[in-house]
Amino acid sequence: MNDSDLDSLASVPAEPGEVGLVAPQDYTSDEPFAFDCGRTIPGFTIRYETYGRLNETADNAILVCHALSGDHHCAGFHSLTDRKTGWWNNIIGPGKALDTNRYFVLCSNVIGGCQGSTGPLSTDPETGQPYGINFPIVSIRDMVRAQERWLRAIGVKRLHAAVGGSMGGMQVLEWGISFPDFVRKLVPMATTPREGAQAIAFNEVGRQAILQDPDWQDGNYAAGEGPRVGLAIARMMAHITYLSDASMARKFGRRTVARDGKLENAFDVQFEVESYLRYQGKSFINRFDANSYLYITRALDQFDLAERAGSLETAFEPVTADTLTIAFTSDWLFPPDQNRAIVTALLRAGKRASYAELTTDLGHDSFLLESPQLYDLVRDFLAS
Amino acid sequence: MNDSDLDSLASVPAEPGEVGLVAPQDYTSDEPFAFDCGRTIPGFTIRYETYGRLNETADNAILVCHALSGDHHCAGFHSLTDRKTGWWNNIIGPGKALDTNRYFVLCSNVIGGCQGSTGPLSTDPETGQPYGINFPIVSIRDMVRAQERWLRAIGVKRLHAAVGGSMGGMQVLEWGISFPDFVRKLVPMATTPREGAQAIAFNEVGRQAILQDPDWQDGNYAAGEGPRVGLAIARMMAHITYLSDASMARKFGRRTVARDGKLENAFDVQFEVESYLRYQGKSFINRFDANSYLYITRALDQFDLAERAGSLETAFEPVTADTLTIAFTSDWLFPPDQNRAIVTALLRAGKRASYAELTTDLGHDSFLLESPQLYDLVRDFLAS
Repeated sequence: MNDSDLDSLASVPAEPGEVGLVAPQDYTSDEPFAFDCGRTIPGFTIRYETYGRLNETADNAILVCHALSGDHHCAGFHSLTDRKTGWWNNIIGPGKALDTNRYFVLCSNVIGGCQGSTGPLSTDPETGQPYGINFPIVSIRDMVRAQERWLRAIGVKRLHAAVGGSMGGMQVLEWGISFPDFVRKLVPMATTPREGAQAIAFNEVGRQAILQDPDWQDGNYAAGEGPRVGLAIARMMAHITYLSDASMARKFGRRTVARDGKLENAFDVQFEVESYLRYQGKSFINRFDANSYLYITRALDQFDLAERAGSLETAFEPVTADTLTIAFTSDWLFPPDQNRAIVTALLRAGKRASYAELTTDLGHDSFLLESPQLYDLVRDFLAS
Repeated sequence: MNDSDLDSLASVPAEPGEVGLVAPQDYTSDEPFAFDCGRTIPGFTIRYETYGRLNETADNAILVCHALSGDHHCAGFHSLTDRKTGWWNNIIGPGKALDTNRYFVLCSNVIGGCQGSTGPLSTDPETGQPYGINFPIVSIRDMVRAQERWLRAIGVKRLHAAVGGSMGGMQVLEWGISFPDFVRKLVPMATTPREGAQAIAFNEVGRQAILQDPDWQDGNYAAGEGPRVGLAIARMMAHITYLSDASMARKFGRRTVARDGKLENAFDVQFEVESYLRYQGKSFINRFDANSYLYITRALDQFDLAERAGSLETAFEPVTADTLTIAFTSDWLFPPDQNRAIVTALLRAGKRASYAELTTDLGHDSFLLESPQLYDLVRDFLAS
């Protein structure tokens, strides 16, 4: 999108309560960036979007942190013909829980990602080739440290809050620990201070589907090519873990697809849930990079606040922010007990921490879905 | 194994309480077999094992029905150097719950399987080539109808019981419905009268991993070759669904593997659970056929007693057997409520049905694991 497009977009009024048309922006740092793994890259770019206006004291910003397969585009539309809003449009906008009349809401694609921020798809200045799996191993803390440099550079003095679900919640916790003076409130949701064996296991199956796909080619595939089969399989499987048995029963049950042609083979799609998952897999490979998927799932698996500090309570020592942790009863990927562990450790460390457990049967993805209860909780906490 | 091997084995005494050395046998029917899908094959072979002796009235037989990845070898050893017993050795043997001093225990590889019974690996007499995916679609009822022909042929007049978990439990239910005069007691465990969307979804991801593996070659791969990557991925994922979050936490937690060499790449194995799953995937491809995996998961997904009869209660009308259904609290693949649905429908249909829900945190695979509670339940029910 070039500047003249932006000018013309700016003249289109948004629907009431909606952020309307938005355009991504890039911040590029020419200073070296040192990763937790010990490696350094000469600079990096962060792609981001903003909604609302930064106030005069530059402290009304709310950072939204995205999950594994998310990106910086969390609200509004990119064009007049765009039929799909950003991924958290239901909570971000004028008068919504993340009220853009009041707050300056920002979201960036994580470092290591594939939607414009520096990651495996980016060119390694040393070789002139894409980094591929020569990209440094990324940690959740690296994501947050890159965000902090970007936020300071664009003039944000302090975050009113950091908010996010799943991997976004991990970043929110890292914000509170790594930059306690920079963030006033933390809202981690549907997250965990460290994954258990089952979550690691699902990520590992996804990685193996990619790594063993012959088109992965040791990570050196050309842009637009790569392990499409493996990435689709990884996504299909992961998608099941974002839902719940009950929500899948309601949404699909055992309904079969209407068939207007012959079966391609005996194992052609039969049930609606199969059709849905195949679609999820296919659409994912058009928007996500397989190497990024490897890096980001690894970041999820290696995230372990307790291990780093000796205990979770000790890990939370630096936190000064108020915290509201939100869990969802039917989330079996990062279940309520893992969210409660955050709150317990915060309280033991003498921090201000509250907890809400929302009853829902929509699984891990509950944090992304329409929920007046969630909106009220977040709105009140941000205003308190 | 040839006859002289068998003679020499017969002279080796078994350990007390163990069935000891066993050898598989084949039954071949030269009569046509008509599948539920409408297709017919000219004949078939069933590979099976037996433990104990058939009594004079030929009615002390107990049929063990295996699950998706199981086979006919459910007890004892195949050779003196064999380090691994059959898959249900803990419940089958002299003095055990399936007491071979008292009962004649049998288990067969299902039709459609790949361990000696006729299936996609077998030669299609019309073409002289392996059936591959020209094998007829197999139903759970087909499996049971093939078993019935085999049992009558080898002289079993009536089953004292049919016992099995997971897909084995589906066969047990089919036995009670399709051949009510042939079976006295039914013990379905960790099973379901029909899968929900989530279970279908997991099976579908496994099938897609196989179908989209370039080595699948439309099912026409040579014996010993085929979609090894896809099959391993399918198995790794399915294996997670057989365990539980709690059992994986206890067994693996976040323990990392000791590393004696350099990382092959950044995504080389790190956590023990990864290493375990990779091993599960690798060992599976050496013993299982990918096409069979497609057929058998399809049989699981299409099994729907209620749909066939109009309601589950109506489906159970023909049953005359006593039934004991056993569920396991931590089984999230076929959870207790799906097992209870069997019992409720049986009772509504006026049948004798009892139910036990065993508290365990070992997940779906609980039915396969050491459990004195399970043994006592089964023993008492069989003797009652």
